[in-house]
Amino acid sequence: MNTLYEVRKLSSKNIVSPKGFAAAGMHCGIKHKKKDLALLVSEVPASVAGVFTTNAIQAAPLKVTKEVVYRTGKMQALIVNSGNANACTGKQGIADAYEMQSLAALKLGIDPSLIGVASTGVIGEMMKMEPIRAGVGKLELGKTLEHGIDFAQAILTTDTVMKNTTYSTLIDGKEVVISGSAKGSGMIEPNMATMLGFITTDANIESEVLQAALSEITDLTFNAITVDGDTSTNDTVIVMANGLAENETLTPEHPDWHNFYSTLQVVAEDLAKAIARDGEGATKLIEVEVVGAFSDEEGRKIAKTVVGSPLVKTAVFGNDANWGRIIAAVGYSGASVDPEKITIKIGNALMVENGEPVPFSEEELIKILKANEVKISVSLGLGEGQGLAWGCDLTYDYVQINASYRS
Amino acid sequence: MNTLYEVRKLSSKNIVSPKGFAAAGMHCGIKHKKKDLALLVSEVPASVAGVFTTNAIQAAPLKVTKEVVYRTGKMQALIVNSGNANACTGKQGIADAYEMQSLAALKLGIDPSLIGVASTGVIGEMMKMEPIRAGVGKLELGKTLEHGIDFAQAILTTDTVMKNTTYSTLIDGKEVVISGSAKGSGMIEPNMATMLGFITTDANIESEVLQAALSEITDLTFNAITVDGDTSTNDTVIVMANGLAENETLTPEHPDWHNFYSTLQVVAEDLAKAIARDGEGATKLIEVEVVGAFSDEEGRKIAKTVVGSPLVKTAVFGNDANWGRIIAAVGYSGASVDPEKITIKIGNALMVENGEPVPFSEEELIKILKANEVKISVSLGLGEGQGLAWGCDLTYDYVQINASYRS
Repeated sequence: MNTLYEVRKLSSKNIVSPKGFAAAGMHCGIKHKKKDLALLVSEVPASVAGVFTTNAIQAAPLKVTKEVVYRTGKMQALIVNSGNANACTGKQGIADAYEMQSLAALKLGIDPSLIGVASTGVIGEMMKMEPIRAGVGKLELGKTLEHGIDFAQAILTTDTVMKNTTYSTLIDGKEVVISGSAKGSGMIEPNMATMLGFITTDANIESEVLQAALSEITDLTFNAITVDGDTSTNDTVIVMANGLAENETLTPEHPDWHNFYSTLQVVAEDLAKAIARDGEGATKLIEVEVVGAFSDEEGRKIAKTVVGSPLVKTAVFGNDANWGRIIAAVGYSGASVDPEKITIKIGNALMVENGEPVPFSEEELIKILKANEVKISVSLGLGEGQGLAWGCDLTYDYVQINASYRS
Repeated sequence: MNTLYEVRKLSSKNIVSPKGFAAAGMHCGIKHKKKDLALLVSEVPASVAGVFTTNAIQAAPLKVTKEVVYRTGKMQALIVNSGNANACTGKQGIADAYEMQSLAALKLGIDPSLIGVASTGVIGEMMKMEPIRAGVGKLELGKTLEHGIDFAQAILTTDTVMKNTTYSTLIDGKEVVISGSAKGSGMIEPNMATMLGFITTDANIESEVLQAALSEITDLTFNAITVDGDTSTNDTVIVMANGLAENETLTPEHPDWHNFYSTLQVVAEDLAKAIARDGEGATKLIEVEVVGAFSDEEGRKIAKTVVGSPLVKTAVFGNDANWGRIIAAVGYSGASVDPEKITIKIGNALMVENGEPVPFSEEELIKILKANEVKISVSLGLGEGQGLAWGCDLTYDYVQINASYRS
């Protein structure tokens, strides 16, 4: 069954591109001007999988959406607002999230138990429900690229760009499309920080199998990014699989399982990297690759610690090849290390070999650091464990954005 | 034995004020202009206690100083340089640290095994030993306030102010003085980040007892501050107690033990708060007090997580009463919380009561947030656990300082 066709990136496609999905996005009035209300609908109920923030304080919409994901395993629509996170809003917040679910149900003629809710924005302010009530009636669902773009725009907060990605693969000789839209740029840290990710596919798959795949893939992608180490109250990733591609039901035993899994993984990785690259105030994507760790878990821990270090992030912003901060972060990661076996590269330039500094050309390093993607490689020489993590530099603009977010 | 005199703050005193200590500080040429070499000496070998960074990558001088602290329990002198951390400098770095120890021994006519070494500054650059060799000969030890100030200045890096504090207490009716000098403003995180703290006292106490007291107190003070979450390779706190106050040997059974312990704690707390207040680029000290936690350990964990959140830090910088970020940090701290029992105050203003937002006056909050000390109180309603932590706001200047540190 293996063909050369495995995973193909599709340009000019988005979240409405898998069969049977429609979307809408508009400005309803939660924000001053920008789009702030979005809707995503499948023609038929879809198998659903979800991962949610590990923060002990969870926003009201998560309660509603978790019920949908965990109780029935089916979702047919998602209503999303930006501008207000509906978090720490007490009992009224829960009521407001259920009302959003009902408003979408009424508009679509779908049972509320099939409708998820997601919110992102300021924490601790009561939802303005009036604009949402009025807005839901005016949302115009459609299947064109523009409708997908409206959706992708309406879920943004401090993001500077939309985050869309679409791939296709073959399963049973049939084309299956997987597409995702995400938002997130501050309060990003593994374990799902203020990050929303919505993935649609026309693959035919049961929700339990989809959930297992999503959970594994989330650890390697969405949980491998960090902007500021703050874990949000609202993070949610949802995958809806409506089965309209009509492939044989996917399980890990299916001969094309690998095609499906790899495609879902690359969609998640694209979205995760897009979020890291668009970190609040960021000018660069930083990728940290760790090899030779004691285990994959420790490899990922080191990669995350390095990419999350404010001192590494500011050094990258300042084009400063300060590898001392990199090795210091490796040291405080909590993972097993042998200082005399650590080798560090920035781009292709060797900085430290087996714990000893290596002379390097400042000019070459400045060139490497001025690129819009900076790769840091760390080799531990201890075992076979590997890890990858993504983040961004820490800049004046991060401070500016976050010193005045509520105002 | 309890008298009204317990702990008295002494102004215009410093690290040379306890009996029998002398100090020196000068510019030797590691830095361009500022003082960068310091020496601290006791007339007689002192009982010594030390706490050191938990980073797996430890700078060369720590190896040397740990030998002194752990092998003999006695220290008579400390040589310190700033401008270069002598960290990640391989075998040559170790040799350089031992040479610094020998240079001081030769100058003072003291056995090298009684001499500690500490360094702070850039990681990963080889020490310039020439200026140190030349400088040690020129250091002029003395017991005046100026000599103490020279010492306190020569240990600084990006610090904007010296950090000195001195207290006295009565033990066996005799005055015992405890004084400390510290440096540190970036890479500060519990478990001893690039932070040096040197405490002198004329108390008579054995090193084991002193070590136990210092370790406990460090958890409540130096390990309760955070600037950026980066743990350094060089952190060191040393207490030298030379016994010249001639009190009966102190143990926890001594009737005046509490006087000694409280005085040592307040010295450590003063230095820790001074470091937090002088965090790189900081404009404000932030204090977070947690009560009602499940345990003291969890109380401290929550306090540290809140004060370390980049989003809380930027909000405080921007005078933004964004308590949502505070409660989100409480939620991701990993400690037990019941969202419906959380109460949060900024200054004296109630923001959240039992998980429900409380209306507040923006004007009053701006006034509270514009002060140079901002206190955040979190009540969990779960148990008797408490915690205190200190940090600072995150500002444009933090980014500027750290984007260009090496240059």
